[in-house]
Amino acid sequence: MKIGIVGLGLMGGSFALDIKTPFPNSIIYGLDNSEDNLNKALKIGLIDHQIKYSELNKMDIVLVSVPVNHLLKIIPKVLDTVGKNTLVIDVGSTKEAICSLLKNHKNRSNYLAAHPMAGTEFSGPSAAQKNLYIGKTNIICEFEKTDNELGKFALEIFQGLKMKTIYMDPKSHDVHVAYVSHLSHISSFMLGKTVIEKEKNEDNIFDLAGSGFESTVRLAKSNPKTWTPIFLQNKTNLAAAIEEYVSNLNLLKELILNENEVELSEILNNTNRIKEILNNKIKDEK
Amino acid sequence: MKIGIVGLGLMGGSFALDIKTPFPNSIIYGLDNSEDNLNKALKIGLIDHQIKYSELNKMDIVLVSVPVNHLLKIIPKVLDTVGKNTLVIDVGSTKEAICSLLKNHKNRSNYLAAHPMAGTEFSGPSAAQKNLYIGKTNIICEFEKTDNELGKFALEIFQGLKMKTIYMDPKSHDVHVAYVSHLSHISSFMLGKTVIEKEKNEDNIFDLAGSGFESTVRLAKSNPKTWTPIFLQNKTNLAAAIEEYVSNLNLLKELILNENEVELSEILNNTNRIKEILNNKIKDEK
Repeated sequence: MKIGIVGLGLMGGSFALDIKTPFPNSIIYGLDNSEDNLNKALKIGLIDHQIKYSELNKMDIVLVSVPVNHLLKIIPKVLDTVGKNTLVIDVGSTKEAICSLLKNHKNRSNYLAAHPMAGTEFSGPSAAQKNLYIGKTNIICEFEKTDNELGKFALEIFQGLKMKTIYMDPKSHDVHVAYVSHLSHISSFMLGKTVIEKEKNEDNIFDLAGSGFESTVRLAKSNPKTWTPIFLQNKTNLAAAIEEYVSNLNLLKELILNENEVELSEILNNTNRIKEILNNKIKDEK
Repeated sequence: MKIGIVGLGLMGGSFALDIKTPFPNSIIYGLDNSEDNLNKALKIGLIDHQIKYSELNKMDIVLVSVPVNHLLKIIPKVLDTVGKNTLVIDVGSTKEAICSLLKNHKNRSNYLAAHPMAGTEFSGPSAAQKNLYIGKTNIICEFEKTDNELGKFALEIFQGLKMKTIYMDPKSHDVHVAYVSHLSHISSFMLGKTVIEKEKNEDNIFDLAGSGFESTVRLAKSNPKTWTPIFLQNKTNLAAAIEEYVSNLNLLKELILNENEVELSEILNNTNRIKEILNNKIKDEK
């Protein structure tokens, strides 16, 4: 199986590593607009060969793993050139903009809109890691618009990676991820900003970071080149999510200032349910 | 060495486990207002014997590890009865209220105000874990008000646990932890609340939790009995911290809605510095 990967960062690089477990005979062809990333990916063995855009039509799969603003240029460009039997997949964190853009593309049926819920706060080819995809949830949008045979092929690949596939329309996808993924990143970035501004003496931050700050701020280490365009493409949903979050923060502040112990502890107790919700998840995965 | 522990939850129980590494001959006496906790602590071997308040004067150290609202009743009660050579330490996350309360206590010099920056989101005796204290930062307040000999003894204990001791006045302590610890908990609890409210279908939460939500919301699993009184005792500093956090969230929302890519990515880039700040910490620890 010939696999072309456009964008050799965390997502593309990890796909290159993971796909060889279920499909050991895969040959990986890579492409990146950064010469440096391309050379690194070759050097550390993420990809077997480099490839040009004009050669992507020889691939069985083309995985496009670039920031979501670049996706809007690259996916149409790839679809323009691919042959009938090439499956084109993206792994972007927003789905409405890309699906709407491709609506009338002549090769729309070669494309599958996917969003694997996997990642770390690191980026670049050296951040690629084995097992990033294994067992994770994968959201597929507008499955009916992908060619039947190519769609089946895509599902075989995701099953090979032991991913849990769920289906959504692009609008719902963007609403859900605004809350469950993008808002987490916003809350973490702004926590980092607030603490850095207050603690001009950086030693204080790491001396005092033991009790919880470190994990809560982890996502603030994420790559701005990835996240700026995600926030912008999902701006309406995300603004609504931030507003609800802010309104909850203001409510809590008032309860604290009014020393309303009863309501304060009721809210914390209700939110504690997240423990059981996420425990179910862990049980499910085992 | 005889050690009495009042409050056999995560902090007290883990201290009981950790102290036996540098001081293997310690005998641990425990006390808890929950019969259930006391029996569990005996059963799993956290403590060697149970003890009554009236017997705490026979101890070399009394560690008080109860929620910060209970601290205000229990520490004076313990100090009322202890002998000249008993060191009383607390591990509460706020320091101004307790230090101010004890200002004129006749046995103030038996007390050391400590705050080990260590913890997990779990609670109760079964949450106790070895190495919770080892290598962590420990904040000591008003060290000069503790008897010289007892102060030296306390430092020996913290050195035995390989803790990094730093000194602060109670007011500064409460300001710093409002930002670096308490705000992290608030941001996490309110993220959990916002997502639970939006995602009435809980399956969505755990299906979609893969990309960052799980770690950002981890602290929302924390015990409300511990955190409600902490938030209330640190209300003024915490309200200011929440206000700055909310103002940063509102700023980001505006930049997103106005598609101000330049400023948005500048803010994310600046906040990325948290990576280096926390990396230094990790290097330091190694």
